[in-house]
Amino acid sequence: MERAFSKTIERAQTSAVREILKLTQSSRVLSFAGGLPAEDSFPAEAIRAAYERVFERGAGALQYGVTEGVPALREWLTGFLAEKGVSTSADRLLVTTGSQQAIDLAFRVMLDPGDTVLVERPTYLAALQALSLADARAAEVDSDDEGMLPDDLEAKLRTHRPKIVYVTPTFSNPGGKTWSAERRRALVELARAHGALVIEDDPYGDIRFEDGKRVDALFGLDAAHGGEGNALYLGSFSKTVAPALRTGFAAGPADVIRMMAKAKQASDLHSSAIDQWALLELVTRWDLQGHIDGIRRMYRERMEGVVAGMTGEPWSLLRYNRPTGGMFLWASLPETYVAADLLKLAVEEGVAFVPGEPFYAGAPARNTLRINFTHTPPALVPEGLARLARAIERYAAAMPAK
Amino acid sequence: MERAFSKTIERAQTSAVREILKLTQSSRVLSFAGGLPAEDSFPAEAIRAAYERVFERGAGALQYGVTEGVPALREWLTGFLAEKGVSTSADRLLVTTGSQQAIDLAFRVMLDPGDTVLVERPTYLAALQALSLADARAAEVDSDDEGMLPDDLEAKLRTHRPKIVYVTPTFSNPGGKTWSAERRRALVELARAHGALVIEDDPYGDIRFEDGKRVDALFGLDAAHGGEGNALYLGSFSKTVAPALRTGFAAGPADVIRMMAKAKQASDLHSSAIDQWALLELVTRWDLQGHIDGIRRMYRERMEGVVAGMTGEPWSLLRYNRPTGGMFLWASLPETYVAADLLKLAVEEGVAFVPGEPFYAGAPARNTLRINFTHTPPALVPEGLARLARAIERYAAAMPAK
Repeated sequence: MERAFSKTIERAQTSAVREILKLTQSSRVLSFAGGLPAEDSFPAEAIRAAYERVFERGAGALQYGVTEGVPALREWLTGFLAEKGVSTSADRLLVTTGSQQAIDLAFRVMLDPGDTVLVERPTYLAALQALSLADARAAEVDSDDEGMLPDDLEAKLRTHRPKIVYVTPTFSNPGGKTWSAERRRALVELARAHGALVIEDDPYGDIRFEDGKRVDALFGLDAAHGGEGNALYLGSFSKTVAPALRTGFAAGPADVIRMMAKAKQASDLHSSAIDQWALLELVTRWDLQGHIDGIRRMYRERMEGVVAGMTGEPWSLLRYNRPTGGMFLWASLPETYVAADLLKLAVEEGVAFVPGEPFYAGAPARNTLRINFTHTPPALVPEGLARLARAIERYAAAMPAK
Repeated sequence: MERAFSKTIERAQTSAVREILKLTQSSRVLSFAGGLPAEDSFPAEAIRAAYERVFERGAGALQYGVTEGVPALREWLTGFLAEKGVSTSADRLLVTTGSQQAIDLAFRVMLDPGDTVLVERPTYLAALQALSLADARAAEVDSDDEGMLPDDLEAKLRTHRPKIVYVTPTFSNPGGKTWSAERRRALVELARAHGALVIEDDPYGDIRFEDGKRVDALFGLDAAHGGEGNALYLGSFSKTVAPALRTGFAAGPADVIRMMAKAKQASDLHSSAIDQWALLELVTRWDLQGHIDGIRRMYRERMEGVVAGMTGEPWSLLRYNRPTGGMFLWASLPETYVAADLLKLAVEEGVAFVPGEPFYAGAPARNTLRINFTHTPPALVPEGLARLARAIERYAAAMPAK
C-alpha cells in the first residue's frame, strides 16, 4: 500500500549533518562534520553526583510535573540569565527538550502555513527543517561578518511582513561569527518597528574565547525599549554541561511563553523531570562558571590547533575568519569549487566535514564548508587535516586550468 | 502590541485536566481528577541504582545520540513487545518523550490541515489537543462497552476517508473499558480495506486486574494479514516505571517510523539519552514483570476500595462499569445533570474529578465524569468520597423535581 504522508513531511529534507554523522559513526573516518561537544568536557562525576541527589528528594521527583518545567529550575534560570542581560521571571520561562524544541514550538505557535520567516545567510540548518515542518518559508537577509545588513533587513521586513526574524547572533552555527553592537541594535529596532518577533538562538554564547565584556543579548537591547518585550531568547545546556540531558529553555514575552507551553502540553506534556532536577542539583552545588571557563580554554586551544594545522599548501585555497567563540569554523573554497564534491574525495581519504549548501535558505554558496573543531581529539587533528589536504589537492588537480 | 499567533494554537484548548491539576496541587482538595500513577508504586531505589550504572558507561552516554533512540534500548524493546503480540525490529521503533510525543509525531507526519481522524466516543483528551495542533478534525465513531460499532465505523470510513483511526482499546482513558476480540478484528479489517492507519495507543495495557490471557494487540491482529503492516503501536513506561523519565515509544511500519524520526529530528533531535540508558539498565537488571504485577495488585485494590465506598445514597445516581484494568472509572449521572456544574460544588467541598465533556470530539455527554482511583492514598479515599457524596447531594437537591 502506498501511504500518503502530510505534504510538509514529504517535502522536509533529512538533515545532511545527521546523515553524515550516521555514516561516520560506524567507520574509521575522522570527522570534523558533526556539531558535537568534546566528550572530555563533560563533568561526568559531577553529573553522577547530581542524579544521586535527585533520588534523595523522594518519589515526588519521579511524578508527572508541570509543562512549563520544574519551578525551582526556572527560578534558578532567572538568575543565570540576568547575568547575560536577559532579565526575566519564572513564569516567562519554558524548559524544553534542548533548544531545538524551543525553536520548533516557537514556530508552531507563531506561524501559519505559507508564512515567511527572515533568517541569516547562512543560517542554522535545523531551524530551516523546523520551518519546513511548520509549512513556512524562509527568506534570507543579506549578511556579512557583522550580521544582517540593515538596509536589506528593512526592505525584506517591508516585502515579506514576517512574524519572526530568527538569528544566531553569537558564535553562530554554521558561520562562527558574532554580530556587532550596531547591527544588534538595528535588528531590535527594525523588528519592533515592523512588528516581527526576534528569536535569538544562543546555544554557543557562553563559549567565548576572549576575556572581557560579553556582547549584548538582543533580548536585553529589546527590553530597554520597554513594554512586554519583543524578543524570545533560546538557550541550552547541551554545550556547557552535556547534550544527553536534552535541557534547553526559552525566555520571552508572557503571551508567547504561554502559547508555547500550550503547544508543548499537546506535544509531550513535559520534558524529563529527572534531568531537570539533576541539572538543578548540578548547577546549584557546583562551579558552573568555572566549568564553562574550562570549556572556553579547551575549545580555544582546539580551534587554534586546527587553524595552526591549516597553513601552507593547499590551505591557501581556503578563506575563513578565525572564530572568537563557539564550535565552528566556516570556510570558502574558490568560487568554482563545490564542497559537496570535495566531501566525496574527503570521505575516500577518511575525513569528513559539512558542505555549506544545506545552511542556505536561498541560493547556496556551494563553495562553502563548515569545520567543527571541538570534537576531534587534538592528537588526531594533524592526521585529519593531512587527509583533508590530500582531498583538496586531488580536487584542485582535477579542476580545469584557468 | 497585539501579537498574531498561528490559527491552530489560537483555537487549541488548554487541557481542562491540566488546569484542574494546577488548581488542586496548591490546595487541600482531595483529587480524583489527575491521571497520576501512585507515587508509592515508583521503584525509586531501583531507578537510583540504574542511573548510577549509566555513569559507569563513561562520557559516551552523555553525548548526542541518534534521533531514533538508544539502539540497545530499542533492541530490548523488541523482546518486551513480542510478548504482547507486537512483533517488530529495532529499525521499526522510535523512542519518544512519553507516548504523548508519539501521538503528536504520528499526526504531524500523516495529516494535512483539514484532514479527519476517526476517534472513539469518548476519547483521550490530549490526542484531541494534538489533532487540533495539526489543524486536523476528529470525527467520533459510535462506541459501546465493547469498542467502536463496526457499522458506524464503516460508514464513517466511507464518508470521511480518514488517514487514521486513533483508539485506546485496552483499559482506556477516560472510558476505562477494553475492546472485545470481535471489535478488534473488525477495526483492523475495516481500516485495511479503507487504507486508514490504525493508531493503537496502549499506555495502560500492562495494568490488567484479572489474571489469564492478555487481550490481542491490534498490531498483532493486523500483522496476521501480512505485508508492511497497517498499525502503529504506542506505549510508555510512565505508568509502569515512572512518569518523570518521559520514555515512550512507537512501533510501526518502516515508512511511518522513518517519517516520524524525520519530524522528531526537527522537533527536538532526540529524547533524553540518560533516561533511555537508565531505563535500559533498569529493565535488564531488575524484575520489571514482577514490579508490574505488584502495580496490578495495588491498583486493583485501590479500584475496589473506591467502588466499595460508592455504595448507598447518593451513589445510586451514578452508573459505571467496574474497570478490569487501567487507572480510571468512567461514570454517568442522570441525563439532566451537568458534571462541570457538579465539579464547582465538589471543589467547594474539597474534592475534584474530571467532567467528561472535554473527552468528546462531538456533542458531549455532559452528565459523564472520570474518576482516577490510583493516586489518592487509600486512607484518604473515604473522606474524598464523603465530600463528593455531599456535593452530589447538594447538586441533586437543587435539581427541579421531576
